[in-house]
Amino acid sequence: MISVAIMGHGTVGSGVAEILTTHKHKLFSAVGEELYIKHILDLRDFPDSPLADRFTKNFEDIINDIEVRVVVEVMGGTNPAYDFVKRCLMAGKSVVTSNKELVAKHGRELLEVAKENNANFLFEASVGGGIPIIRPLSQCLVANEVDEIAGILNGTTNFIFGKMINDNMDFADALKLAQDLGYAERNPEADIEGHDACRKICILASLAFGKHVYPESVYTEGITKVSLEDVKFASKLGYVIKLIGDVKRDKEGKLDIKVCPMLLSKDCILAGINDVFNGIMVKGDCTGDVVFYGKGAGKLPTASAVVADVVDCAKHLKARKRIFWTEGNSKDIASYKDSVTAMYIKVAGNGEEALKAFPNSKVMTEDNKTVLITKEYRFGEIEEKLNSLQVLSAIRIGNL
Amino acid sequence: MISVAIMGHGTVGSGVAEILTTHKHKLFSAVGEELYIKHILDLRDFPDSPLADRFTKNFEDIINDIEVRVVVEVMGGTNPAYDFVKRCLMAGKSVVTSNKELVAKHGRELLEVAKENNANFLFEASVGGGIPIIRPLSQCLVANEVDEIAGILNGTTNFIFGKMINDNMDFADALKLAQDLGYAERNPEADIEGHDACRKICILASLAFGKHVYPESVYTEGITKVSLEDVKFASKLGYVIKLIGDVKRDKEGKLDIKVCPMLLSKDCILAGINDVFNGIMVKGDCTGDVVFYGKGAGKLPTASAVVADVVDCAKHLKARKRIFWTEGNSKDIASYKDSVTAMYIKVAGNGEEALKAFPNSKVMTEDNKTVLITKEYRFGEIEEKLNSLQVLSAIRIGNL
Repeated sequence: MISVAIMGHGTVGSGVAEILTTHKHKLFSAVGEELYIKHILDLRDFPDSPLADRFTKNFEDIINDIEVRVVVEVMGGTNPAYDFVKRCLMAGKSVVTSNKELVAKHGRELLEVAKENNANFLFEASVGGGIPIIRPLSQCLVANEVDEIAGILNGTTNFIFGKMINDNMDFADALKLAQDLGYAERNPEADIEGHDACRKICILASLAFGKHVYPESVYTEGITKVSLEDVKFASKLGYVIKLIGDVKRDKEGKLDIKVCPMLLSKDCILAGINDVFNGIMVKGDCTGDVVFYGKGAGKLPTASAVVADVVDCAKHLKARKRIFWTEGNSKDIASYKDSVTAMYIKVAGNGEEALKAFPNSKVMTEDNKTVLITKEYRFGEIEEKLNSLQVLSAIRIGNL
Repeated sequence: MISVAIMGHGTVGSGVAEILTTHKHKLFSAVGEELYIKHILDLRDFPDSPLADRFTKNFEDIINDIEVRVVVEVMGGTNPAYDFVKRCLMAGKSVVTSNKELVAKHGRELLEVAKENNANFLFEASVGGGIPIIRPLSQCLVANEVDEIAGILNGTTNFIFGKMINDNMDFADALKLAQDLGYAERNPEADIEGHDACRKICILASLAFGKHVYPESVYTEGITKVSLEDVKFASKLGYVIKLIGDVKRDKEGKLDIKVCPMLLSKDCILAGINDVFNGIMVKGDCTGDVVFYGKGAGKLPTASAVVADVVDCAKHLKARKRIFWTEGNSKDIASYKDSVTAMYIKVAGNGEEALKAFPNSKVMTEDNKTVLITKEYRFGEIEEKLNSLQVLSAIRIGNL
């Protein structure tokens, strides 16, 4: 029997407890031993839970229990999650988390603490919810150099774009619907400003390129400036707009990493990923494009990824998994100005001035507004040109 | 240093040797030791290879070399692959293969021999080429009951359908083009008759449901009867035609497993998978739909999956991976007659008789031919009805 503690009994945490209970027999045959929930840490009371006798409000009950070998952290945020996780690892307990903020901010340090204490620190659920991506990236694609990772990493914003594209809703209405359906938080900033997607592309970049990429060093642009009119113009030109997290090496070996809305050709496989689904494309030098698609959030999908990591920890109590990356340096990150891209630019009138600034663009004029699909330029150059124009919208065009 | 032997120096085998050479440093840091190619078994001569000194024509050189810990089998076919692999496992050497025929026919036995001898038998590359699917299915989705697996498992037939759909080619021309481009063999039977896809869905079914499913117990229908006219009718009705391998449990707990052409709604994520790409959808009770997409064949994609397994074997020389399934029984497989499906049926004339047999069907008549999209029936019943009609085409409609 292997004793497990779960810190947090919210959406994901209660899902983890549910799966450990309902899938008991399948998990037993996978591990070879029973996974027993010994403690659940939450400040709230759950007197009606069938596991009511396991609840505690005191973290010391977990850290001091030598029988607990695997700890699940699904509290969210970094305080007290960071401190609790670190102490568990220092005590030689393996930790599984779905907490992307924790991994994006402290992953490098926590992986090192895990290594020093011969414990595992796993976080499959931190990116893509129930979609297997961390393990395939670290194991199956080990025989590849990763050239690029690009993904739809936030289901909420993808849902909002879907409503704009398919149901003709404007941004505010689509956001309200997402909130009413429980997809978006009352304070939706982390989603719509791109912070959530940023944390996830940071985790993927750290794993694929071996050095920690911190969220604050990543160019991040949300979706609030994208209008229904832009969505419609894009569609007429054969594109859909998605919020994309993207990382690749530039010619100087620096990481060109960003999160921003992008126009994707309708032929691109990521363009077809709708609703609250996530899709992550990994370009390997041997495999070519591989795409992982599924529900990027939600109670049971995310919890099932957590439980898969628990199983992995339980099977490797003495052997460490080789997930590891080293300290990063902001000098390894290219300036967003050095990124090269084509642009979608919308201006009032017939676009004469804009076309002078961006010659040889593809042009469409409707209702006294003009849209340009430009050639590729360094983004720094694009910014300068845009400063001298009166522009209604400017969105990158993805080349995936 | 861990010594590796490669049996077979064809397309995939030479790719494995290439990746082990070009990605040496990356693999070293993944394993913690060098992976050294000690022997390459092939009956042909390769005097110009940089590894010319490692070639042998004698299997005994491999089996008798106690330094060889991991053997790669990429010869194809089952004779002598089956015998060689079994002997390697009995000698305690781990084996990695891309050979779907071998795994589909002898997987259960070879997994048992591996277990008895504390060796690993891994076969990530046998399904989906470079797409990670075996490991995610066995590890990441361990906390799920699999409800259904459905996939485009054969790139050649998908390429042929793509040419029919997008370039208006008829079947024979599209097949010839696939052969000219090297996607299809001169003898294309294994692809177009569905045998290749059948082996792959058998492997996935065995892994997901825990009992060996043998290819000869699976209803398998190729794509040769699908005409350009069917593809066009399907398109007008909002469908695309794909060759699908599909397995799920029916109400009695038996496996409803089949390989056949299916009409898929254009909204289905698998409908958008074009060219030689593969796509595999796994429906888990917790994750919902998860899709894996990428190049299902080709030298480097397949070889990179083989090398990932070699790394896994090298890291687990003493510990066995828990991939395992038990002997299967044809009684566990439902009759194809008990499968329930809606149908696309094409008849000459106005379809009056057909509509009597399949009332409440959706109907479209063009050029004195009529197409019905029927309600769902048990396939046995459909067969009886079809026997009393003169039918030009009858294709299942996928409900994925």
